[in-house]
Amino acid sequence: MPQLAYVDGRMVPLRDAMIHVEDRGLQFADSLYEVCAILNGRLLDWPGHLARLRRGLAALFIDFPMSDAALGIVARRLLAVNGQREGLLYLQLTRGSARRDHGFPTTPSPSLIMTVRRFDFAQRVRQQATGVSVVTVNDMRWRRVDLKTTGLLANVLAKQDARAAGAFEAWLVAEDGTLREGSSTNAWIVKDGRLLTHPLSESILPGIARSALIDLARGAQIAVDERPFSLAEALAADEALLTSTTAPLLPVVRIDGQAIGTGTPGPVAARLAPLVWDEIERQTGWRA
Amino acid sequence: MPQLAYVDGRMVPLRDAMIHVEDRGLQFADSLYEVCAILNGRLLDWPGHLARLRRGLAALFIDFPMSDAALGIVARRLLAVNGQREGLLYLQLTRGSARRDHGFPTTPSPSLIMTVRRFDFAQRVRQQATGVSVVTVNDMRWRRVDLKTTGLLANVLAKQDARAAGAFEAWLVAEDGTLREGSSTNAWIVKDGRLLTHPLSESILPGIARSALIDLARGAQIAVDERPFSLAEALAADEALLTSTTAPLLPVVRIDGQAIGTGTPGPVAARLAPLVWDEIERQTGWRA
Repeated sequence: MPQLAYVDGRMVPLRDAMIHVEDRGLQFADSLYEVCAILNGRLLDWPGHLARLRRGLAALFIDFPMSDAALGIVARRLLAVNGQREGLLYLQLTRGSARRDHGFPTTPSPSLIMTVRRFDFAQRVRQQATGVSVVTVNDMRWRRVDLKTTGLLANVLAKQDARAAGAFEAWLVAEDGTLREGSSTNAWIVKDGRLLTHPLSESILPGIARSALIDLARGAQIAVDERPFSLAEALAADEALLTSTTAPLLPVVRIDGQAIGTGTPGPVAARLAPLVWDEIERQTGWRA
Repeated sequence: MPQLAYVDGRMVPLRDAMIHVEDRGLQFADSLYEVCAILNGRLLDWPGHLARLRRGLAALFIDFPMSDAALGIVARRLLAVNGQREGLLYLQLTRGSARRDHGFPTTPSPSLIMTVRRFDFAQRVRQQATGVSVVTVNDMRWRRVDLKTTGLLANVLAKQDARAAGAFEAWLVAEDGTLREGSSTNAWIVKDGRLLTHPLSESILPGIARSALIDLARGAQIAVDERPFSLAEALAADEALLTSTTAPLLPVVRIDGQAIGTGTPGPVAARLAPLVWDEIERQTGWRA
């Protein structure tokens, strides 16, 4: 059976999943998205993703009539029809199709797309043993990256820079030297046993995995400071980490080719990793 | 006959003009666009639009195989099949459809879309008599707005702010107080008989109408300074103007509710307007 996607009320084969060329998602990046982990056939932190989506819709004045309950039914139905047990759910919601004009259409009709794909989370567990490298690039993004919009070209170019350098991720540095986050991950460092990550603001994405890690760390008596830190601080840190839906916890062992701490995954990462995966198991029953 | 659009090699009815949900234009705003005026059945400044598109493609490392000649044939064919004599050609070129991943796909296949629509240019000639109002908003855009990408959400929100305030356009002001340009137009002021507009940089779009006006003004012995200017300078200017493909020249008579100069279109605008429309007639034969 071909893979199915959901587009505006219908389940269709993915290859036939189309959207109109005048959709504002395509013409203006006037749209929001979420990527949610599917583990053991369940959606991880689904309420958190929905809450972030609703915040974005409110900020963009997109009036979307479907309830959270209805969105959940569609998402779970898409998992079921595709037999998807482990992977990613991608959800995109646009302001809809209208004759091209920058201002909002007078009678907008938002478009909703959902797709699923396989993703190997066990790979991420294995990667914890060695950690990953990151490079840094200038943060070129717009000033409301707390909204999870599809205006992602700066992130695309940053990720491509990382790939060209053989790195896992690109960390984005503001003009004042503040290290904000990765192109698709949140960034962390560890200094003197304390976890540090950029505070919530318009300059970073409020990551679901970020929020989860703060709670887990504090629950384990690991201090977490949400404050801006510089690239210089990161280079001098004892450890570094990244988090995202597709990488719930990964040690970062090199930044721009320079070893962080011992250049191998450190003790705080080693303490946090089982907490992260245990919480995922508690929520979904999934075990690598 | 229904209106036709061009999508990836085919002329299709506009209502059936669709693109795949995994197109990177939709998922990442990984795409460029152009809007070109159609006057008297001809494309105004088509080579300039093509050159800007090529610059964007090079900057984004999008390898697009069609020649300029082939693009011109498709564009003119679309005008012909739609009998479009006066209006706008919209062209969008994306990095193509691929399984979602921030980095570039290994075998990208760019998507090309073209549509046409009616547009009443004579309306713009009439608007010259009264001029238009603008409001100012913070420039929230990313740092490469010289590239004409579809990452336009900041522009959309600015334009919507203008509309809510009953204004024609929103002018974007940088953190340092520099007035950069409008949400979809370039911005100009006149002081002591000299035209002033922001220099080309990564902070403004290199407008085709902007470039045309500089040439026309200099040809008429009107001095043009391409240098940054502040909102305060604009408020104290003798006149203000805006230019774009859809507004080749419009006097701006109010900024944030404050009258500029006499609060009516000024003498420099009155000198420039016939030059602009004469040049358009010279190129296309179009006359209001």
